[in-house]
Amino acid sequence: VSVVGVIGGGQLARMMIPAAVNLGLDIAVFAETDNSSARIGATYAGDYTDLSQLLSFAATVDVVTFDHEHVPVAHLEALQAQGTPVFPPPRALALTHNKIVMRRALAEIGVPQPRWSVATQATRDEALGEVGGFPFIAKLPVGGYDGKGVRLVTQWEDLDDWWSTGEVLFEEAVDFTREIAQLSARRPSGHWVPWAAVETRQEGGVCATVLCPAPGFSQAAHDKARDIARRIAEAYEVVGVLAVELFETREGGLLVNELAMRPHNSGHVLTEQAITSQFEQHLRAVADYPLGSTELQRPAGVMVNVFGDASITRYRDAAEEFPEVKFHSYQKAPRPGRKAGHLVATGDDMDTVFDTAVSAWSMVEHGKA
Amino acid sequence: VSVVGVIGGGQLARMMIPAAVNLGLDIAVFAETDNSSARIGATYAGDYTDLSQLLSFAATVDVVTFDHEHVPVAHLEALQAQGTPVFPPPRALALTHNKIVMRRALAEIGVPQPRWSVATQATRDEALGEVGGFPFIAKLPVGGYDGKGVRLVTQWEDLDDWWSTGEVLFEEAVDFTREIAQLSARRPSGHWVPWAAVETRQEGGVCATVLCPAPGFSQAAHDKARDIARRIAEAYEVVGVLAVELFETREGGLLVNELAMRPHNSGHVLTEQAITSQFEQHLRAVADYPLGSTELQRPAGVMVNVFGDASITRYRDAAEEFPEVKFHSYQKAPRPGRKAGHLVATGDDMDTVFDTAVSAWSMVEHGKA
Repeated sequence: VSVVGVIGGGQLARMMIPAAVNLGLDIAVFAETDNSSARIGATYAGDYTDLSQLLSFAATVDVVTFDHEHVPVAHLEALQAQGTPVFPPPRALALTHNKIVMRRALAEIGVPQPRWSVATQATRDEALGEVGGFPFIAKLPVGGYDGKGVRLVTQWEDLDDWWSTGEVLFEEAVDFTREIAQLSARRPSGHWVPWAAVETRQEGGVCATVLCPAPGFSQAAHDKARDIARRIAEAYEVVGVLAVELFETREGGLLVNELAMRPHNSGHVLTEQAITSQFEQHLRAVADYPLGSTELQRPAGVMVNVFGDASITRYRDAAEEFPEVKFHSYQKAPRPGRKAGHLVATGDDMDTVFDTAVSAWSMVEHGKA
Repeated sequence: VSVVGVIGGGQLARMMIPAAVNLGLDIAVFAETDNSSARIGATYAGDYTDLSQLLSFAATVDVVTFDHEHVPVAHLEALQAQGTPVFPPPRALALTHNKIVMRRALAEIGVPQPRWSVATQATRDEALGEVGGFPFIAKLPVGGYDGKGVRLVTQWEDLDDWWSTGEVLFEEAVDFTREIAQLSARRPSGHWVPWAAVETRQEGGVCATVLCPAPGFSQAAHDKARDIARRIAEAYEVVGVLAVELFETREGGLLVNELAMRPHNSGHVLTEQAITSQFEQHLRAVADYPLGSTELQRPAGVMVNVFGDASITRYRDAAEEFPEVKFHSYQKAPRPGRKAGHLVATGDDMDTVFDTAVSAWSMVEHGKA
């Protein structure tokens, strides 16, 4: 493999570019617009739902991978039929396209997950019983992300506008103490490597802060998280990075919440903290190149997302005040609530690192005191 | 500043690209060919000695900096006159264009350097006396690098073919114990930050191995190296990275050997080892953005250059065997003796890290045992 093609020009494709440059791979990004976040690596701007455009892009690269999971499976199979390897393979990616498909697949391999059921307006009462009654979580099977397409349901009226869309996934409202993400990567040959599990803290359904490694997460808990990730990766022959989002319950159980088969927001902290970043590992995996060490170089790391505006101008004061913090900008046009960048602090002590990261974030958000 | 223009498409420009992507700066590279090492960032391929091409490139960027020091000073002054800031400024860069100019400039600010003199065929005997007689080092003032244009002279016949080129720089053959490089960076505002000094080991006049920090280099020695670098940076208002190559003498003295005003081979180890790489710091400085922390994240780092062929294919076995080593490829066409990539190992103990780096290099060079 010498040219890796990436479909989607968002920040995940953008952050694959430094890894490609260091490794010595060419990268070609199929972006949506001329001014995408990944524009420096873009070789094509077009519509990824148009198969003919995808096919002509794929002819210019040695392998195709993704910035997002929105490409239809039938299109991916057409690329494979044309002779371009697609990683992760369509069969694995299909799990991320539809949350009901994912729940069924995880049930098949016996991975622990919240109680769930599939409901239509006609079967809703039976489905309600299977998830333990109100309140519960309802999800649209397709198209949700960052809290969109997900609702806490306390009464049937909360779902009135969803029944016309078809089946709805019901999940028990897990009484979790915190959320954990387990990232790992797998090569086509089967070699699989995990990173340390991280704790993710959400605000309004959106990942806001990540602590690496997850504080107080025991070796036994790490083993359990890794076992879940490995079983999913192997059963569905995932290639590339697999992010498994987990609920940690009061009893110390781990239940799968969501999956992503690409670099993931919860892994951004690894760029500074681990020997091998998730972006480099993803490229190594899809290029079938040996995987790098996932050892952490510093004992503590914290990532905080920056929303709205993460321009270099907005970062200036905080960059002056916190020279040890790494500020990332995705060069997206500022828009309220938009994930626009992130910052990472690393060090020896989690409390100190957390304070530094949050103080730096606060200065970005609110300006100098 | 939102677009940084880089003249020259070699590996130094290439390695500025990851830093630009992370910082959120656009980078535009004026390359020599369509297939340059920095091609993913190239916006123009042409001839940097042609002022009209430089002027039209400069009109597309907010500041101009360099991958190499070969652009004529008059051209740089023309860019400034057109309104594009040039960093480092032409007056500073001039020191790297001509080794005689550099020696005079360093003498003016009283920085310690080897005894030196300027010779023509007519004045060679007097010049010989000033550097202590045979053997001594002769250098062509312009155009030498990586051991080219430098000779150890043991008899006048060694210089027969050089006199027709004009003045020759004579330098005493310093009885040094090892070579040190002191990297630092300066902003237009004057803020200046050094990294730890490194030890550089040459083979055949070419930098081969770098140890960071320089083993056994005392705090007093670090202070001395930093003082030299700071004085040069301030006196000539350097902006960007300044690399000062030094001889360490038997008596513990430090004498300036060479200067570079751009990221330098001796600083590649910092990409993995320091909070802020030399490439990121160079961009921060030329964009007049706050400088980042130069703290080392791990106590020991070793960089080894890879010559000839540093393709991902050639690295494969070593990458499999040494997952903790970072292999860099410049994606240059393989050619014997050509600097094609490098590798870096970091860790807690210099002896272990050195062994790892050299073993990995040896596997790249000689294949699996």
